[in-house]
Amino acid sequence: MIPIAHIHTDFDSKFGIPRQSGLVPALEGCIIFEPEFRVADALRGLDGFSHLWLIWDFSEAHRAEWSPTVRPPRLGGNTRMGVFATRSPFRPNPIGLSCVEISRIELFSANGPVIYVRGADLMNGTPIYDIKPYLPLTDSHPEARSGFARQTASRPDLVVHFSADVERLFPPEKLETLRQVLAQDPRPQYQRDDTRIYGMNFSGKELHFSVCDGEMNVFP
Amino acid sequence: MIPIAHIHTDFDSKFGIPRQSGLVPALEGCIIFEPEFRVADALRGLDGFSHLWLIWDFSEAHRAEWSPTVRPPRLGGNTRMGVFATRSPFRPNPIGLSCVEISRIELFSANGPVIYVRGADLMNGTPIYDIKPYLPLTDSHPEARSGFARQTASRPDLVVHFSADVERLFPPEKLETLRQVLAQDPRPQYQRDDTRIYGMNFSGKELHFSVCDGEMNVFP
Repeated sequence: MIPIAHIHTDFDSKFGIPRQSGLVPALEGCIIFEPEFRVADALRGLDGFSHLWLIWDFSEAHRAEWSPTVRPPRLGGNTRMGVFATRSPFRPNPIGLSCVEISRIELFSANGPVIYVRGADLMNGTPIYDIKPYLPLTDSHPEARSGFARQTASRPDLVVHFSADVERLFPPEKLETLRQVLAQDPRPQYQRDDTRIYGMNFSGKELHFSVCDGEMNVFP
Repeated sequence: MIPIAHIHTDFDSKFGIPRQSGLVPALEGCIIFEPEFRVADALRGLDGFSHLWLIWDFSEAHRAEWSPTVRPPRLGGNTRMGVFATRSPFRPNPIGLSCVEISRIELFSANGPVIYVRGADLMNGTPIYDIKPYLPLTDSHPEARSGFARQTASRPDLVVHFSADVERLFPPEKLETLRQVLAQDPRPQYQRDDTRIYGMNFSGKELHFSVCDGEMNVFP
């Protein structure tokens, strides 16, 4: 297994990354192939598809040992579930699976062919092992039961207020993307302290925020 | 990357395996973990899900070199498409991705925990790298466009006739599964010769068949 590409996203650290792909569709990532795989022909026909699977390396979650159970953040961090019943990064083989939407494909850039995708839940620089087209005939099962994962999907969004300094840091579309990221509340469910100030990094800038009664204030 | 399990299916060779997962829902496979991973706790909560992702090794498709394009059988075997626009086994990292339905889970068998699944398109003995729950919220996109793959999905099924000898080889449910497998016409699209007799292996038995005018005759 060798990386065929790396993805470039707005997240230089784990904090703030949406918990699953597609939750913040405005998030754009850019897939740049390794020199050996910069062959436009390898993408021939991909423009006919709207979605992609990325199979990738949880490069920040490598561990020498594996644990049969993990504590999903969405369950409050206290309940243990079987690792194979979760999408946790801490698994025997640290492989990630994400469905993303194709935004556009540039076949002949200075870096070879580049795929821009929307909705990626990956950290900046994550190694990609494989890219496959999404086939609704076999991959789409809207009727599937999703166990404990379903119970926690409908938390109301936070209302996000940016300080004037933050508004000057980003162009308008990027600011809107950041709003969608923050509205999902990036704090782990078991560390939600309304008296605390949290730091995070987004698109290369350091930010801070606090939350009170469902409202978030964001400042540099 | 180490195999955590192997799947046991009716196919000892590639010929006859459905082209994608889920196409023949009656096909049952059985996932048996490697001794190190025989821990019932690792499956805790999995019974709340109806579908699984399997990430697996295309163990029969290892090649020293990679080719940017492949010829999908469904396009007749002459048209070349980019490897990343197909689910071909011949890819830089030979990783397979399949969605299967959970049939039942046996936590304490003589082989440790065992997952029975339906709709698997994997060869008997295929090594499994990872098992993840299917999350419809992020994984299901019925509206996704599927490019050239869509054009060829609606070929009419073959009418399958078993000889009396074949009918004696299998119990009724297995025979019905075999019928569904064969009705999809396992012959590669570019090798459909109605004057030829084809051999295949199913559930440990050797079979032969010929096809004429949309009807298939199957004999031992």
